[in-house]
Amino acid sequence: MSLIKQKVGVLGGGQLGRMMMEAAHRLNVELIVVDPQTDSPAKQLSSNSHIDLPFTEPNAIMELANRVDVITVEIEHVDTKTLIEIVENKFKDKNINKKNSRYGVENVNIYPSPQTVKVIQDKYLQHKILQESSIAVAPFLNCSTLEAAVEAANEFSYPFLLKAKRGAYDGRGNVVVKSKEQLYEAWNNLSSQAIPTENSNSNDSGIYAEKMINFSKELAVMVVQELNGEVSCYPVVETIQKDNICHVVWAPAPIDGLLMKKAQTLACEAIKALNSISLNTSDQSSNQNNSLVQQIPKSAGIFGVELFLLENGDIILNEVAPRPHNSGHYTIEACETSQYENHLRAIMGLPIGSTQLKVNYSAMINLLGKCGTDDSLPPNDENNIMSNIFEQVLGVPGATLHSYGKKYTKNGRKMGHVTVVSDSPVEIRNKVNTILNIIDQNGLGNYKNVVSLQNLIAYKPAPLVGIIMGSDSDLPVMKLAANQLNSFGIPFELTIVSAHRTPERMVQYAQTAKDRGLQVIIAGAGGAAHLPGMVAALTPLPVIGVPVKGRCLDGVDSLYSIVQMPRGVPVATVAINNADNAGLLAARILGARIPTISNGVIEYMAQIKDEVETKIEKLESVGYENY
Amino acid sequence: MSLIKQKVGVLGGGQLGRMMMEAAHRLNVELIVVDPQTDSPAKQLSSNSHIDLPFTEPNAIMELANRVDVITVEIEHVDTKTLIEIVENKFKDKNINKKNSRYGVENVNIYPSPQTVKVIQDKYLQHKILQESSIAVAPFLNCSTLEAAVEAANEFSYPFLLKAKRGAYDGRGNVVVKSKEQLYEAWNNLSSQAIPTENSNSNDSGIYAEKMINFSKELAVMVVQELNGEVSCYPVVETIQKDNICHVVWAPAPIDGLLMKKAQTLACEAIKALNSISLNTSDQSSNQNNSLVQQIPKSAGIFGVELFLLENGDIILNEVAPRPHNSGHYTIEACETSQYENHLRAIMGLPIGSTQLKVNYSAMINLLGKCGTDDSLPPNDENNIMSNIFEQVLGVPGATLHSYGKKYTKNGRKMGHVTVVSDSPVEIRNKVNTILNIIDQNGLGNYKNVVSLQNLIAYKPAPLVGIIMGSDSDLPVMKLAANQLNSFGIPFELTIVSAHRTPERMVQYAQTAKDRGLQVIIAGAGGAAHLPGMVAALTPLPVIGVPVKGRCLDGVDSLYSIVQMPRGVPVATVAINNADNAGLLAARILGARIPTISNGVIEYMAQIKDEVETKIEKLESVGYENY
Repeated sequence: MSLIKQKVGVLGGGQLGRMMMEAAHRLNVELIVVDPQTDSPAKQLSSNSHIDLPFTEPNAIMELANRVDVITVEIEHVDTKTLIEIVENKFKDKNINKKNSRYGVENVNIYPSPQTVKVIQDKYLQHKILQESSIAVAPFLNCSTLEAAVEAANEFSYPFLLKAKRGAYDGRGNVVVKSKEQLYEAWNNLSSQAIPTENSNSNDSGIYAEKMINFSKELAVMVVQELNGEVSCYPVVETIQKDNICHVVWAPAPIDGLLMKKAQTLACEAIKALNSISLNTSDQSSNQNNSLVQQIPKSAGIFGVELFLLENGDIILNEVAPRPHNSGHYTIEACETSQYENHLRAIMGLPIGSTQLKVNYSAMINLLGKCGTDDSLPPNDENNIMSNIFEQVLGVPGATLHSYGKKYTKNGRKMGHVTVVSDSPVEIRNKVNTILNIIDQNGLGNYKNVVSLQNLIAYKPAPLVGIIMGSDSDLPVMKLAANQLNSFGIPFELTIVSAHRTPERMVQYAQTAKDRGLQVIIAGAGGAAHLPGMVAALTPLPVIGVPVKGRCLDGVDSLYSIVQMPRGVPVATVAINNADNAGLLAARILGARIPTISNGVIEYMAQIKDEVETKIEKLESVGYENY
Repeated sequence: MSLIKQKVGVLGGGQLGRMMMEAAHRLNVELIVVDPQTDSPAKQLSSNSHIDLPFTEPNAIMELANRVDVITVEIEHVDTKTLIEIVENKFKDKNINKKNSRYGVENVNIYPSPQTVKVIQDKYLQHKILQESSIAVAPFLNCSTLEAAVEAANEFSYPFLLKAKRGAYDGRGNVVVKSKEQLYEAWNNLSSQAIPTENSNSNDSGIYAEKMINFSKELAVMVVQELNGEVSCYPVVETIQKDNICHVVWAPAPIDGLLMKKAQTLACEAIKALNSISLNTSDQSSNQNNSLVQQIPKSAGIFGVELFLLENGDIILNEVAPRPHNSGHYTIEACETSQYENHLRAIMGLPIGSTQLKVNYSAMINLLGKCGTDDSLPPNDENNIMSNIFEQVLGVPGATLHSYGKKYTKNGRKMGHVTVVSDSPVEIRNKVNTILNIIDQNGLGNYKNVVSLQNLIAYKPAPLVGIIMGSDSDLPVMKLAANQLNSFGIPFELTIVSAHRTPERMVQYAQTAKDRGLQVIIAGAGGAAHLPGMVAALTPLPVIGVPVKGRCLDGVDSLYSIVQMPRGVPVATVAINNADNAGLLAARILGARIPTISNGVIEYMAQIKDEVETKIEKLESVGYENY
């Protein structure tokens, strides 16, 4: 007997199913996999009796429905028709004589709701519903004919995107159209592949057009919806993609904390919108039946939301996946509860676990078969190379390898991934660099121009310290703090905030500092020197005050102004003009959070000791007269 | 094909094997389990073809040896005779014609070395070897006869421990002897159960005596030995035991960091000693064969080391387990690499992963069948209760449940465990409390007098802040800092350290502060006020200086002494006599590491704002004349 008593069936048995199986093992939940491959990655991990049929096949789904309490998916390309029928019949045939067994199609729940999955399968419909729910997406147009595509080209101008509405994944089914000539070619290509809708009356070409968006970053957020409709979200991550294949994920995304909140809000709203699609959208006839509407099947589970961050700070939604997602692998090691476990908890109606990060920084690197080329190595050679990579990444401290158990390495195939965690932004970048070098040196994957140097340099961790000063005349003093932070590899921002000349800016700066991600503020000011104390009154962060020496009173005026704060509002005051020490104090403070910085402080102390010892040596050897 | 190409066999298929299987899954390593139970916890997780025979049976071991590259154990009560024979033959028959297959008894490695396991199986021998290697253990004496036991009683005085040398676990085989009458009874009991040695010539009774140790805490350290002989260790944890069954593990142990280092050193030395037992200890005849000695089989794997912390700060070793250990379960969620994964990596000769904690605090609570009673509930009732507990603990934020898949709940049986993680010492205690209450309220386990209130109050987190002052005359000022820290739930220590009267003490205090576990120092001083600056020169921690007002100069003397530090050594100075603000600044600083404290600061700021608003209201309503 399983102590948590539900049985779960999953359509699809790839690496996402495999990691879902790992979560099911921990909870001791029986997970039955439907996948045509007998030893698919998920099935390898379990002695349960699985179903060796395609997950698109109605028979397979019906067999599964008779054996489990809940059906879910690890891939969206499933047979939603059958799934919807199961749900509809369940609600229609309320008075049917239930079988004695707890199992049976009339007892099974399907989460996420098949209506939601059906909408998500169709990217055009997905965008339409999101747009109707006021979720920002890129402008898009239906193209029922080639003529409509030409009109879309006029509307969006070249280059623009021509996309298959259904069946697209990892970049397949998406074409960037750069000219009218390319448009014809793209149209022919896509329309030959396009999957028609179920509705045979429709004139649907299966193709739509989307305006090309210039984004500054690709972001992603995992959202988990509970059966009671509540949604929780994971941290915002940045995904580094090339040719629509994800290579690296940075968690958290190195962006302003306020942008993160915006992205999370958008992602949550999108999931609420997509999950509130009711049964009757596919069944107009039963629209009048109020008792049916009352019993609209709920939706639940984890959703991957891909977003674009635009140059102007706007965030728009790219697309949604109704399942665990590559951009959420990092949650296994880096969050209090993984995306896989929370998916299972959600669809079984169990309490959701905390989605918080439990480490400061993490990153995920996909281990892919040779990318961006059609040359294939003999399968065994490539397997050996991948095997070398696997063994070498184990040598990176804080790295966790996930090998998916796939038999053969193929071009671009996801063979595994590695997650690294670290307390420090510098270290996380170094660890990712080390792993990318391992991949490069094993000759797998055209990685050189994908994610190694070029993109890594683009990883600029979000600032942890804000250096502010009342006037640019303070800069010669305050830049010493900046130099110190640089020497410890501490990311910071530096700007002018004047208490007396820009009071509103000061309030806004101080009040948002923590939410934007800062951990410490260094404020320099001369004369009346109100800045440090006023900022300290407006933020819960530690504020370091640097009294800057003015023309009179030798800086004692600023020292008193900064240090003599009333009870309740502390400012950590350093010596007059000693911004060096302010930078060092910030490093000592961050050392509590980031042990590698604390080690840096220890090295620094040894270094200043050495400097004095060199002087001692010199003084003693040349004598004081010649010194 | 497995990409990491070795196959591993494990003797024993309980929960430790199950969690080893989970680690094997991640690495895609094939793990074959030997266990008489067909659906033992470990086997449930895998479709591999396992061996359904007792792990003590030579046939089972030989079959396994023919199928895998490495054999390991998840329980020490295995047939070491057969394992040693395999290893010995491997080295004797060097010129044997190897089979074509990569598998075969002549190719298999056995880690940890069966000699080490054999020594560990015999607690008396284990203690003897540790003692010979200068590892501190409790005084013990062999008792070949009852008379010898009486002598031991005279030596150790009552109460003392009578122990079975072999086969003991979870308290079985250990008797506390309180009087001579009890001694006879205990002797008869133990000698009827005692397992004789293999050597039939010996007069071994199978019993030994051990002096009763008054310890202040039980500690444990997981140590991983690599094939090259290097050892790494995990953090020190505290185990809360009752009747020799572990109930709760606190990680890290709430003790001084210097004690931790001492415990880690002891644990590492012990493992090195036990792993250097050579093959020829069991095979005198081959002692002359030098080439054999050259090829002494190496040992590798994870070891659990249980320790006692005595009142005087000494640490002695209790016992060692040659396998993953209950006290190391927390590593799955709380460390960069789990004990299970590092065990597999070590025995396969792969690089060891980082053993560092990746969270500030964690704890593990065993979920046990009703303890400390012989009353049994009907199995299904107890299963239902356990099922309730499992579901309820999922509601605790930051909790991860591990359900072992055991069919029936029994008295004291380990059915699962739950790990909680947190950034804050107060929160971790609250989370453990919540889980213990869930167990209590479900009526499982006499927990009330085991670990709930009584022992929880005994969990006193290690101090994060040190408050020091030059003289007790500073206490009226400095205690305000202590009060502030208390109000934020920040553990601290407070003492007198005088720069001028106890200079050596000051140096020693400052130099050890970080290693002892402090994150921030608050130093108060008056007059010449050298303490804060001198301490800052001797520690990498942030030092907050409080100028204490003396009889002359209004404290300006101390302010200047504290704030006007030279470049390189910062002191975070607060206002004269304002130790309140020093406490608040410490809270703001710790907020970078412990978000819950940062939230406390936000609440505090709202509260002081409210206080002023109340005054505003009063002033405006009663008028300034009547205020």
